[in-house]
Amino acid sequence: MISLKVNLDERSYPICIGSNLLDSHELLTQYIQGNSALIVSNETVAPLYIDKVTAALDGIKYQALILPDGEKYKNQEILNSIYDCLLSNHFDRNTTLIALGGGVIGDITGFAAASYQRGVHLIQIPTTLLSQVDSSVGGKTAINHPLGKNMIGAFYQPKVVIADTNTLETLEDRELSSGIAEVIKYGLIRDLEFLDWLEDYIDDLTNRDPVALAYAIERSCRNKAEVVAADERESGQRALLNLGHTFGHAIETGMGYGNWLHGEAVASGTVMAARLSEKMGWISASDVERVIDILERAHLPIKAPDKMTANRFIELMALDKKVHDGVLNLVLFKSIGNAIVTSNYKQEMLLEAISESY
Amino acid sequence: MISLKVNLDERSYPICIGSNLLDSHELLTQYIQGNSALIVSNETVAPLYIDKVTAALDGIKYQALILPDGEKYKNQEILNSIYDCLLSNHFDRNTTLIALGGGVIGDITGFAAASYQRGVHLIQIPTTLLSQVDSSVGGKTAINHPLGKNMIGAFYQPKVVIADTNTLETLEDRELSSGIAEVIKYGLIRDLEFLDWLEDYIDDLTNRDPVALAYAIERSCRNKAEVVAADERESGQRALLNLGHTFGHAIETGMGYGNWLHGEAVASGTVMAARLSEKMGWISASDVERVIDILERAHLPIKAPDKMTANRFIELMALDKKVHDGVLNLVLFKSIGNAIVTSNYKQEMLLEAISESY
Repeated sequence: MISLKVNLDERSYPICIGSNLLDSHELLTQYIQGNSALIVSNETVAPLYIDKVTAALDGIKYQALILPDGEKYKNQEILNSIYDCLLSNHFDRNTTLIALGGGVIGDITGFAAASYQRGVHLIQIPTTLLSQVDSSVGGKTAINHPLGKNMIGAFYQPKVVIADTNTLETLEDRELSSGIAEVIKYGLIRDLEFLDWLEDYIDDLTNRDPVALAYAIERSCRNKAEVVAADERESGQRALLNLGHTFGHAIETGMGYGNWLHGEAVASGTVMAARLSEKMGWISASDVERVIDILERAHLPIKAPDKMTANRFIELMALDKKVHDGVLNLVLFKSIGNAIVTSNYKQEMLLEAISESY
Repeated sequence: MISLKVNLDERSYPICIGSNLLDSHELLTQYIQGNSALIVSNETVAPLYIDKVTAALDGIKYQALILPDGEKYKNQEILNSIYDCLLSNHFDRNTTLIALGGGVIGDITGFAAASYQRGVHLIQIPTTLLSQVDSSVGGKTAINHPLGKNMIGAFYQPKVVIADTNTLETLEDRELSSGIAEVIKYGLIRDLEFLDWLEDYIDDLTNRDPVALAYAIERSCRNKAEVVAADERESGQRALLNLGHTFGHAIETGMGYGNWLHGEAVASGTVMAARLSEKMGWISASDVERVIDILERAHLPIKAPDKMTANRFIELMALDKKVHDGVLNLVLFKSIGNAIVTSNYKQEMLLEAISESY
């Protein structure tokens, strides 16, 4: 097992990465405070893994809440069902919420933990590649609003992240690729050496080679932990982690939550960010090809959805959380492996970059 | 103007107390970050004071959202109306929410600020005695849930608290007394000298003597600021501020939100806490009389509502946030002026203390 630390003073916590971690009861129980726990999972993940988790909860009061599966359920109504379950079963402030599932489960359970009784304990057990390399680490929690993705939420750190790589064996191919999009992101924004490695081993990842996957998860989490430790609440460099996300969130909102997977939308958005960076003269056409190539090899979409016009993108992007005082900040490339957050781009070039992505 | 500081490292902020503060535009504008603001107020307070606030917002984009007045509106539906207003008007992450009103407005606006886009700026302008001496200071934000008061919320600090004592002139007598309940609380739990002063000057407070009110607000805020600075997230002594509140929340929930004012419920609950402390042998019968006497002189209820049985109290109190691992912690008196948080009381004595309060 590899253990990385997210350094956030009194809110520091470990990320544990390895195979068969869910079979080790001690690993989980040492992070449970109080004597009650609510496992929140979904109908896809729970039948596969919840027994391993409950087996570790011997001797404490626990309950499981199984939610429907999908991004479209990351909403206020489902969040309320978590509150209702907690309150009607008398879970108190010393309770631990255990998020067992992918990014949706982690985000909504995380926000429930942040807001129930003004904050209870949280453990993240991510079971998808995307949540293992990105969403479970760093404390971003949220639900979607009909007018925008992740608009209601909190920064709230877990006590531990337990990433059992065995859970990836049951992941659908599309979900695997969606996670690889976020893995590639780290290479593109700040870790050129990792991007080189990915270009050599991307087929091993899509073929689920366990050694390659474990390395990619570890290296991704190292990147994420460094960025989060330096800028927990996204006042600066943490925003780099949103490469392709402003475009991608527009796709997710515009196409209806859940129709495009998050990583798919991010991949398409990353290509748009690359095109805009090229128009600004910061990277070359061959750099853009390099971005497209690695995403394509991960079986990710590199084009915009036909059903959304470029103007619809602009409209939805104006609602993004990275709008400050009316100005939309975007993550663009100064060079491959070196992204920046900037509002220093021309609006017509943004429209062109999107228009050329169909 | 008196300015006190709440010391919380990088989250420190001032409490400004004085008359005619809302007429000083600079006082407000210096704490607004970004170039947009949403004022959240209610239909009672807005007609009286919102013009003073908007006059200070010249040159920035602002909007006002006027909510219905009352504790029963401190709920998810009204919270959603704040999110909807923010999103549909493109308020971004650099927005400042300005809570103009009493405890309900402060609590719900505070939680909206804590959770909109994972946190935007917040300014508290409390316009009731209760919110000036207690709820606007210290960062507790929340909404109610049908199953319990303040069950969904966050710790989220404002940039400044501006308490304009002129706003108390328009306060109803019942609201004034409700605020005095929280003023008395500080004397009872930790500031015996202040309790002595209150016993001398309580009539001046109920008669709205401005000098007496200003002193009571300042001294209350000093107490609150000290406790919050020592224990922001209520892992220890901050819980003392909940004297009478566990009983009081049961009354508020059991009688329907808004039928008893918060301070009224707290007053009734404080008497129950005193009775239980007497049964434990910690204070004398004359101490209990002293508690009852000061509350009565503030025109506060000192009995339990007839419509609620003692068993109903026990049932509702089991849901309180101060339940830890199944044990209900209560704030009780070791002596007058020295409260403790303890689960070291006998359950049958608790039932007796409530039963004897009708």
